[in-house]
Amino acid sequence: MDDAKRHAGEWSARYVQDGMVVGLGTGSTVFYAIQKIGERIKQGLTIRAVASSERSEKLAHDMNIPIVPFNSIDSIDLYIDGADEADRHGHLIKGGGGAHTREKILAYNSKKFIVIVDSSKLVERLGKFPLPVEILPFAAELTLNHLKALGCEPRLRRNGNQQYISENGNFTADCQFNAIEDPVQLDAAIRSIPGVVATGLFVNTMVNLVIAGYADGTVKEIKPHE
Amino acid sequence: MDDAKRHAGEWSARYVQDGMVVGLGTGSTVFYAIQKIGERIKQGLTIRAVASSERSEKLAHDMNIPIVPFNSIDSIDLYIDGADEADRHGHLIKGGGGAHTREKILAYNSKKFIVIVDSSKLVERLGKFPLPVEILPFAAELTLNHLKALGCEPRLRRNGNQQYISENGNFTADCQFNAIEDPVQLDAAIRSIPGVVATGLFVNTMVNLVIAGYADGTVKEIKPHE
Repeated sequence: MDDAKRHAGEWSARYVQDGMVVGLGTGSTVFYAIQKIGERIKQGLTIRAVASSERSEKLAHDMNIPIVPFNSIDSIDLYIDGADEADRHGHLIKGGGGAHTREKILAYNSKKFIVIVDSSKLVERLGKFPLPVEILPFAAELTLNHLKALGCEPRLRRNGNQQYISENGNFTADCQFNAIEDPVQLDAAIRSIPGVVATGLFVNTMVNLVIAGYADGTVKEIKPHE
Repeated sequence: MDDAKRHAGEWSARYVQDGMVVGLGTGSTVFYAIQKIGERIKQGLTIRAVASSERSEKLAHDMNIPIVPFNSIDSIDLYIDGADEADRHGHLIKGGGGAHTREKILAYNSKKFIVIVDSSKLVERLGKFPLPVEILPFAAELTLNHLKALGCEPRLRRNGNQQYISENGNFTADCQFNAIEDPVQLDAAIRSIPGVVATGLFVNTMVNLVIAGYADGTVKEIKPHE
């Protein structure tokens, strides 16, 4: 598994070019991408970066990748991040790590979004992985009712004995759909519920490339728009 | 002005019926509605209530209106709240007071939503009042760029020398559009920007009745769906 992640992560670094503003995601696969980008920095690559989490920001700092504030950039040239599930059309479920709202903001503001996964994350149909939906704590019971009405079993994520609180200060409902027939339609339906901050569904209009790594060292590239 | 607000607020109380779950909004016009409902409680009316703010919760408590937790109700029978602007189709701008996200959750979960305003809030076209949009603090600069691209001048609301922080922990962008041609389309466009939590546009599909009060003691009722 780790080899497969490493192959996908390292492969993605070849798309980073001199002068780019690069968005760095979070997670065990992105770890390898950041390391590889760090090696290229040593060899003279010049980029600026923003990060989706403090963990990745710290890792980037350790690798001498310069992190810049959001008010110093207009957009992101290339965003690299992982996913919990990806289908062959390039639709994704993200948010197992609890940061999907920030990640969606980065993806939306990026000219190119490259997704890196190990091959076990490629699925025929999304939904076996519970879909994370970030919701406001206010009247959360009512919001959960609306999620349930869309055909899932929502569970508020816990952190030990307490509610899990996102970096934005909200709850996360993990919604077990089992099989998502139409990700675009479901995403729109969930987003229309007041109290929902963001869904973990990333529809393929915001995805440019999925790189899946295999343990044998090969990678497969899926281009949703070709 | 105060007389006009009082007439609208008091008029709305006649729609409260025995056994209802009533949602109480916030503001100077709602103040009169809550007072009138309190009078009816003294005369034997039995209801349960939820409130959009701590201020209204406290006022309801003082008037012996029982406030119940959200996990004890499935939906709200009747929600009464004010607005900053209302057009003749029943589309609204809300959020001058900074609580529009919570108010939208209440409106969405209500079988009937009654809006109470003094007549000065009735406008030919929405947009003179800056549209409040609640946004996540994360990468707010990028979210503001997308709002600007929709044709407005967004300003982050201030609270003295600091950013105004909503009860949900977020920023509020006051978006000066001047004239909003198509509220339904604009609401959808803003909601599609990741980082947006909720807009202050309440389209008329969620509004059942607008009661406008006049200083001379008359009221006008606008029913968007008739």
